[in-house]
Amino acid sequence: MILKQMLEYSKFLIKEAVKPGDKVIDATCGNGYDTLFLAEIVGPEGKVYGFDIQKNAIIATKALLDQHKITNVELIEDSHEKAHKYIDHALSAVVFNLGYLPKGDHNITTQPSSTIMAIHNILPYLKKHGLVVITIYHGHMNGKAEKMALQNYCQMLEQKKFSVLEYKFINQQNDAPFIIAIEKLS
Amino acid sequence: MILKQMLEYSKFLIKEAVKPGDKVIDATCGNGYDTLFLAEIVGPEGKVYGFDIQKNAIIATKALLDQHKITNVELIEDSHEKAHKYIDHALSAVVFNLGYLPKGDHNITTQPSSTIMAIHNILPYLKKHGLVVITIYHGHMNGKAEKMALQNYCQMLEQKKFSVLEYKFINQQNDAPFIIAIEKLS
Repeated sequence: MILKQMLEYSKFLIKEAVKPGDKVIDATCGNGYDTLFLAEIVGPEGKVYGFDIQKNAIIATKALLDQHKITNVELIEDSHEKAHKYIDHALSAVVFNLGYLPKGDHNITTQPSSTIMAIHNILPYLKKHGLVVITIYHGHMNGKAEKMALQNYCQMLEQKKFSVLEYKFINQQNDAPFIIAIEKLS
Repeated sequence: MILKQMLEYSKFLIKEAVKPGDKVIDATCGNGYDTLFLAEIVGPEGKVYGFDIQKNAIIATKALLDQHKITNVELIEDSHEKAHKYIDHALSAVVFNLGYLPKGDHNITTQPSSTIMAIHNILPYLKKHGLVVITIYHGHMNGKAEKMALQNYCQMLEQKKFSVLEYKFINQQNDAPFIIAIEKLS
């Protein structure tokens, strides 16, 4: 494939934005795969703050990190709405995978208002040319509302301060996920 | 900038899809910048077929190519709707820049029906993993209709045969251009 699919493109953007030694956030740890990916890029001099409101996700992520002998991650069982209260460094990337925990309770999903609030709260902590990379899974019950709330919010971000890209395959069935990436310009 | 802007992303995709020796089409020569870019990538063993319906565009493109001593381009003053009649090779890329000729008559623009027909006619000539890269300038009078016709057409392309990406900055004012890229999968 020439055109990068969602997971590949998300990783591509993260690798473009994040260097060893950086501080980053995984706003939705889930089963920990992005947390691990981020931890390996920032390396021992860097740090990943990993958030999830579900204990199961924190446990699964910790197990994955332990298995890979990763020690530069701080896992926090709290809402990503409050992420900005835990950090005191400029961030080069913040990663969101919206929707439900894979293999978890599909009734527990990210919510429109808290997702928007989390992004809104964290943007001031992004450094210049830092990225927020959001993968939107919108097939579940709240998914449509969350997608629309997010698009509306992102369209309003000031063009001089942020570049907001939508990366979407438009001929796929079944509410295929897509990416919104926000780059801080100043 | 981390997120590639339109021109940069279009060139990035072309470089991913096109190798020396390939056959490609510039469906809208305009002032010849994409024609030159394609000619340099395919090299002396490859070939670019360049189309434009405006004599001014063909003249401008020829001048630019001559200036760079480029000899692997065939310029054709005809509609890109008929491009498939001029070629007998599989193509690795077809490039469209929709809208009007920069510095030309802004009343002469690409048209919804002929743009769709051009894409439809050329898709069978694309080789596996070949790309059609379309930059949509939709600020002019026919631009909205052309954009919608194109999106409708592309959304209907069969998912098993084509991957269709929309790459768009969603917080820009003034009908900013965006890209649709079609990759042939089989």
